[in-house]
Amino acid sequence: MKTVAVRNFPRASAAEIDALKGLGVATIHEAQGRVGLLKPYMRPTFPGRDIVGSATTVLAQPGDNWMLHVALELVKPGDVLVVAVTADNTDGMFGDLLAQSSLARGVVGLVIDAGVRDIRTMHEMGFPVWSRAVSAKGTVKETLGAVNVPIVCAGQLVDPGDVVIADDDGVVIVPRRDVVAVAQAARKREENETAKRARLAAGELGLDIYNMRPKLEQAGLVYLDDIRDL
Amino acid sequence: MKTVAVRNFPRASAAEIDALKGLGVATIHEAQGRVGLLKPYMRPTFPGRDIVGSATTVLAQPGDNWMLHVALELVKPGDVLVVAVTADNTDGMFGDLLAQSSLARGVVGLVIDAGVRDIRTMHEMGFPVWSRAVSAKGTVKETLGAVNVPIVCAGQLVDPGDVVIADDDGVVIVPRRDVVAVAQAARKREENETAKRARLAAGELGLDIYNMRPKLEQAGLVYLDDIRDL
Amino acid sequence: MKTVAVRNFPRASAAEIDALKGLGVATIHEAQGRVGLLKPYMRPTFPGRDIVGSATTVLAQPGDNWMLHVALELVKPGDVLVVAVTADNTDGMFGDLLAQSSLARGVVGLVIDAGVRDIRTMHEMGFPVWSRAVSAKGTVKETLGAVNVPIVCAGQLVDPGDVVIADDDGVVIVPRRDVVAVAQAARKREENETAKRARLAAGELGLDIYNMRPKLEQAGLVYLDDIRDL
Amino acid sequence: MKTVAVRNFPRASAAEIDALKGLGVATIHEAQGRVGLLKPYMRPTFPGRDIVGSATTVLAQPGDNWMLHVALELVKPGDVLVVAVTADNTDGMFGDLLAQSSLARGVVGLVIDAGVRDIRTMHEMGFPVWSRAVSAKGTVKETLGAVNVPIVCAGQLVDPGDVVIADDDGVVIVPRRDVVAVAQAARKREENETAKRARLAAGELGLDIYNMRPKLEQAGLVYLDDIRDL
Amino acid sequence: MKTVAVRNFPRASAAEIDALKGLGVATIHEAQGRVGLLKPYMRPTFPGRDIVGSATTVLAQPGDNWMLHVALELVKPGDVLVVAVTADNTDGMFGDLLAQSSLARGVVGLVIDAGVRDIRTMHEMGFPVWSRAVSAKGTVKETLGAVNVPIVCAGQLVDPGDVVIADDDGVVIVPRRDVVAVAQAARKREENETAKRARLAAGELGLDIYNMRPKLEQAGLVYLDDIRDL
Amino acid sequence: MKTVAVRNFPRASAAEIDALKGLGVATIHEAQGRVGLLKPYMRPTFPGRDIVGSATTVLAQPGDNWMLHVALELVKPGDVLVVAVTADNTDGMFGDLLAQSSLARGVVGLVIDAGVRDIRTMHEMGFPVWSRAVSAKGTVKETLGAVNVPIVCAGQLVDPGDVVIADDDGVVIVPRRDVVAVAQAARKREENETAKRARLAAGELGLDIYNMRPKLEQAGLVYLDDIRDL
Repeated sequence: MKTVAVRNFPRASAAEIDALKGLGVATIHEAQGRVGLLKPYMRPTFPGRDIVGSATTVLAQPGDNWMLHVALELVKPGDVLVVAVTADNTDGMFGDLLAQSSLARGVVGLVIDAGVRDIRTMHEMGFPVWSRAVSAKGTVKETLGAVNVPIVCAGQLVDPGDVVIADDDGVVIVPRRDVVAVAQAARKREENETAKRARLAAGELGLDIYNMRPKLEQAGLVYLDDIRDL
Repeated sequence: MKTVAVRNFPRASAAEIDALKGLGVATIHEAQGRVGLLKPYMRPTFPGRDIVGSATTVLAQPGDNWMLHVALELVKPGDVLVVAVTADNTDGMFGDLLAQSSLARGVVGLVIDAGVRDIRTMHEMGFPVWSRAVSAKGTVKETLGAVNVPIVCAGQLVDPGDVVIADDDGVVIVPRRDVVAVAQAARKREENETAKRARLAAGELGLDIYNMRPKLEQAGLVYLDDIRDL
Repeated sequence: MKTVAVRNFPRASAAEIDALKGLGVATIHEAQGRVGLLKPYMRPTFPGRDIVGSATTVLAQPGDNWMLHVALELVKPGDVLVVAVTADNTDGMFGDLLAQSSLARGVVGLVIDAGVRDIRTMHEMGFPVWSRAVSAKGTVKETLGAVNVPIVCAGQLVDPGDVVIADDDGVVIVPRRDVVAVAQAARKREENETAKRARLAAGELGLDIYNMRPKLEQAGLVYLDDIRDL
Repeated sequence: MKTVAVRNFPRASAAEIDALKGLGVATIHEAQGRVGLLKPYMRPTFPGRDIVGSATTVLAQPGDNWMLHVALELVKPGDVLVVAVTADNTDGMFGDLLAQSSLARGVVGLVIDAGVRDIRTMHEMGFPVWSRAVSAKGTVKETLGAVNVPIVCAGQLVDPGDVVIADDDGVVIVPRRDVVAVAQAARKREENETAKRARLAAGELGLDIYNMRPKLEQAGLVYLDDIRDL
Repeated sequence: MKTVAVRNFPRASAAEIDALKGLGVATIHEAQGRVGLLKPYMRPTFPGRDIVGSATTVLAQPGDNWMLHVALELVKPGDVLVVAVTADNTDGMFGDLLAQSSLARGVVGLVIDAGVRDIRTMHEMGFPVWSRAVSAKGTVKETLGAVNVPIVCAGQLVDPGDVVIADDDGVVIVPRRDVVAVAQAARKREENETAKRARLAAGELGLDIYNMRPKLEQAGLVYLDDIRDL
Repeated sequence: MKTVAVRNFPRASAAEIDALKGLGVATIHEAQGRVGLLKPYMRPTFPGRDIVGSATTVLAQPGDNWMLHVALELVKPGDVLVVAVTADNTDGMFGDLLAQSSLARGVVGLVIDAGVRDIRTMHEMGFPVWSRAVSAKGTVKETLGAVNVPIVCAGQLVDPGDVVIADDDGVVIVPRRDVVAVAQAARKREENETAKRARLAAGELGLDIYNMRPKLEQAGLVYLDDIRDL
């Protein structure tokens, strides 16, 4: 591993990031062509929060949170800490002190493929967290990892400066250069969904709205009037 | 697989279904002889909801939610959608649009051995969901499955028209023909439990209420007065 | 297995137990040298509760909750029930009746490496539970286990009379004889953390507070000014 | 649960069962329309064995193998024991003694959604086993289950008398009445595959054999000559 | 954690250890009252080996194998290395070099609740291994653990000097003081099983050998002659 | 997702690939700085094979193996197929026909983060496979993925043309440009290990060879002569 910490990398502008706010992970995932999701074991420690921000990336060793301290010097306000570990690990790498420091440094949230602790305190502090596990297990500060290098977090490649969106549905990554296009596509999708939702609320069927009947017939779906005909 | 969609099958009456309301999954499971439970990985996306309804069953392919649209034409008010997949899969097969359509069609909830998304919106809409996972991962509409055929969902056989009960403890299935008997047995059990609960609240021991002491002795339980005698 | 039930064993005093209150699982775990944690799959059924108490231990068979009734005669007010099973099992071994009896007997909570049921009722009753699973699956009362013997629960050795602390971060065990020392160390740690937290809130970096820079340099961390230098 | 043991049920004829021999689980699964598979966690304890036989079904309690003894009286030569448990359990429910008895009774193999033990001895005895786990953990004989009732084993409904095929790829169930048709379809499929395999061995592409190019184009696949065009 | 390494502790005699040879994990587990097993995820890297020896215990940190080197100075010929980690971890903590050193020091095998690597080489060297995982992932040597203290390995308490038996069925621990009694009970059990096995091979039923019929009837098992009576 | 198939990308030369042969996954992983490993759930279907080759990458949809046919036109002799899926899936995406085609096209092996089937036949054909699962479950050919784009397979980024090394320890990826340097470092490491192994075989301790004693003392390891001093 290159045991490096990178100070500077391009981030999306505040306007670009704002453009992704309020859209939701599922919509953004669809709008960018169904890519970018972290695995579904990444869950919020408490439901009800949404964040959008630029990724500061951290690659840590199992049971070792040293690199998080290095990262907190390099973050910029509006960043999201995105942490991967070199092997599956649930140790509580992040707690109320690191959350306090993160808030002071302007970090908007944490996405970590490991454990966290002090979750109630972090919740009361208003610091949102998505993690693989909750664990009080302490960690050491002995072995170097890396900060702001490309990482694979929960199955997804994340480059520093990629935009991270997280809500109750999970976490999605949008490459920095795609933010404008994805935000536009997501807005369009959302409008489209609002219209569809009204029709569905009125009782119309997806079968008709999406014109699925001919394709179902062609695929060979057979309707039986009675279950005794099975 | 028989790629069919069955339009009609017998359902329990509204009165029969009402008879199961307010009883709870654990009580009903016990009352029908400790059978019918889905595996415990099936959890509510948000706690605090109870549903009872007739099963509309769906067998879907991994990563494909086409059959859900077929099912929503065939549901009747009061139904619960029960969805199995032909292989373990956590993709987000169901979200706010399908929930909107479900509500419009009178569906009272969703039980799905796969992932769901838009969970906060569905919660705000008042549509309750029990699932294996939460995932924003989108799905295609390409391959037929089946609707209203017998399925195995989370380890449990479910026939269309079986009654589904779900609450914070999980999900239990009652075969349509057993509903009346199970409801009666469950009421009796509940009364019995209320009486026992009062005695336990007063400090009586289960050992005495259930007359366990002789059987424990016969089985060979030895009481030691002091842990140093171990 | 020794199929025994032990009536008496030394417990920490009320004062000793009080000394651990309000400290939290993560702090106590750290203060006793990073040992004593149960595995992180042990989660509260509902967040927001903290308990401290002496362990009454139960070793049960899979699918069998007989020994819990034996234990409820032997508990003393202030105890926490700590339940292990001889093989991995998620059956709902504990529900509202046992919770009612537990409350009547002065038990302050349940830690169980198995499933529980009636979780909403137990929550409304104010009885806190940490478990491996939630399951309505009923259990039998057929095979002896043991009560108040040393057990391994969720990867952690627990002796009867050890002190159990549980909160949203999980569960930690403090050996009875270490309670005073651990409580003191935890208080000290907490004060120390409060001071550090103030500095972190003011924007100071962990790198400086913990004087990490020389050690990072010695370990070989290289700072790059620009990501293009990677 | 109906605590019953059924003595008689229709089985496929020896000729019908012979018709399925030598075909393999994957081919039979395909030939019957991609249904009938047990979940892939069911693995042979040692590779290299194939079996085909009629299912004698057993529903056991976790940690309890009593019903297996009941089943061994009711088996007929050529049967396969198929064992489900009422909750996930890995206890070693079956070992060399039950294998010895099974061989004496003409049982051709075991499929069990639980653990087994004495696996080397069973292998040396020539008794093949597919299981969820290997575990030396002993079980009791205390609680009734059922024998020769419909069960769900590893996610698959199995009726007594269904035909079980197992090999290194896993386990598939063919309903008794479908055996002839499935065997015919499987033979046809196998011949077809032999022909295709020869063409593939000669270097022809699946793209051409299956005429996939037009459909790929229609679906929108874009070929890039150079990865730098990505 | 007490970061200590203990040089001396009592071991079972060679005669005592010999008394356990050839008995097998399942038999020994039964003979000592169905206790002592490690969880069934502990599997041999290659089947076909049996070991018996005294436990040298190691408590390691995740991703760190430093303590194994400390242990290899303290082992005595005939010992088995038993390694636990402070948190779930699959890193490859042990490979051909440590195996070479182990062989040179007279260690008869490894039981490790973590990963191992160079498994083919170790197999060719004749060094048997039971582990949670196989992983080439390298580890550091930075953080102290402990050697020859009581550990919990794969759910089982192991004291230094306890006797470890491992074969294709898994791993079982016999406390040093119980070795003689357990070996005797196991021999008796084995003789008893040999006799039973002959009767079973001759076609007698377990139902009769164990006289189960009256108890089954009392428990309420109902025999149905025909499955249509279900 | 960009639904593309890339025809050409740079590969390592035959000489470069040869330089990595015979070194082993663990050695190469160490030599390139402990990076590049796929997660340890990736296991050979049968032990005993080693491969080295250039990655042809495939991104497939769950339950859909269409893209594998596209890939088999684009492979070059000496390639390894490396397959990722857009969501966790164990379906049997690859069997004897695709293996036959792969052999005909010069593919040296398969690394797939999904299931495979016909494993015994593939083994007899001499086609080596590393996979997440074995499953006979059939797949469709309906939805586009991508071929020869960067993928994340079992937690590891793989670019087309990266070199794949797989053996009984798992799978490691070496970026194409690093092959020469990694091979040199691995050779050096191997020589170094051979020397060390001889010293260890002669009974020298790692403690002395690696000069660990001062560092252990500095870290605070305490030796106790007798376990009663604990």
